[in-house]
Amino acid sequence: MRQPGRYVAVPAVIPFKPRNPKSRLSCVLDQDERERFAQLMLCDVVVAAREAGCDPFILATEPFRFGETPVVLDDRGLNEALNDLLSRTPGPLLILMADLPLTTPDAIRRVLSTTADIAVVPGRGGGTNAIFLPRADRFRVSYYGASFRKHLKIAEEAGLSCKVVDSFRIHTDVDEKEDLVELLIHGEGLSRAYLEELGFSITIEKGRVGVERKREGSAQTP
Amino acid sequence: MRQPGRYVAVPAVIPFKPRNPKSRLSCVLDQDERERFAQLMLCDVVVAAREAGCDPFILATEPFRFGETPVVLDDRGLNEALNDLLSRTPGPLLILMADLPLTTPDAIRRVLSTTADIAVVPGRGGGTNAIFLPRADRFRVSYYGASFRKHLKIAEEAGLSCKVVDSFRIHTDVDEKEDLVELLIHGEGLSRAYLEELGFSITIEKGRVGVERKREGSAQTP
Repeated sequence: MRQPGRYVAVPAVIPFKPRNPKSRLSCVLDQDERERFAQLMLCDVVVAAREAGCDPFILATEPFRFGETPVVLDDRGLNEALNDLLSRTPGPLLILMADLPLTTPDAIRRVLSTTADIAVVPGRGGGTNAIFLPRADRFRVSYYGASFRKHLKIAEEAGLSCKVVDSFRIHTDVDEKEDLVELLIHGEGLSRAYLEELGFSITIEKGRVGVERKREGSAQTP
Repeated sequence: MRQPGRYVAVPAVIPFKPRNPKSRLSCVLDQDERERFAQLMLCDVVVAAREAGCDPFILATEPFRFGETPVVLDDRGLNEALNDLLSRTPGPLLILMADLPLTTPDAIRRVLSTTADIAVVPGRGGGTNAIFLPRADRFRVSYYGASFRKHLKIAEEAGLSCKVVDSFRIHTDVDEKEDLVELLIHGEGLSRAYLEELGFSITIEKGRVGVERKREGSAQTP
């Protein structure tokens, strides 16, 4: 991005927890289903990153294979693992969360096209869903809680200019049942197809949009 | 937008219900506060629209004055009032909801810059938060429920090309207590300042971000 005329794919790291992920979806998905669903969301993110011209790789908390996408194993906490990676990365790096199944190549390209020292996309509820660092070793991350504010502060303290990228596709992380509404309305990838396969659909009650799951063999709601 | 070299401000209609608005915020705001809060969100939207080069006006369900911003009174339902307006508007029109206090001029400019027959910005939960129509009389709206899908379908049936604009700032409508988190984190206008004046602030419990309201004279939480 920084060398006109020379194109180098930006590495994109996607942290991933293979085992027992997305526990806040336990009310509608059992553990096997959550693991499969999380992998398919990851797949949607990997495909979007690749189409945007990135070289995605997975940072996994335990041994995990994911087709031909490289997997780096690191069983430390998210911040420790990522900050170690950043400190060893003098070039560009995109950090993308794995639960962003609405992400599109266009949205990622808007993140990568920043002319600031950092581009961030906030997640709903104060989190940080994407960070692009043209020079990764100048930054450190601090996830959990209101991480978006923390990341703006870290950038400011390091004297780095920061661009907040305005994308609902990257803003929308899928953690809870009501987030599935967004995926069923806007998703186009494997994770949305899996939800439909499991019997999920949109409901409208008193003008409010929700989701329901019709289980095989169970009575259909009218 | 359609006539290079000739600049004409795009009219932007903002529907607004002055009395007893935002009832889902009753758990944290009384009626007077909700009316004031709704007006300040409206003000934030009007300012952003004006800065983006629009001519905003308000479509109100009952008599209402709002500084120098024109107010059109129409006590019919939202769809009926807007569709009547659309049918009489052969030129461009932007429809913006009044509860989008994170809206920025940049986000609106991205909506206005579409080359499609319609640009829409979905709201969280299946709604439609902005619609830009370079030729308004070719379209009709159908709000309530999963209106985003309905609007895509209406466009398709009318043979109109449609661009979905990717903006979390216009995607984020403020209806419920948890939406106030977004305003406290990302807002920069009058409605955010009012929340702070009322004693609202961000809380973090078990890593989850929420809001609390400290009322004057009440004991401070530790």
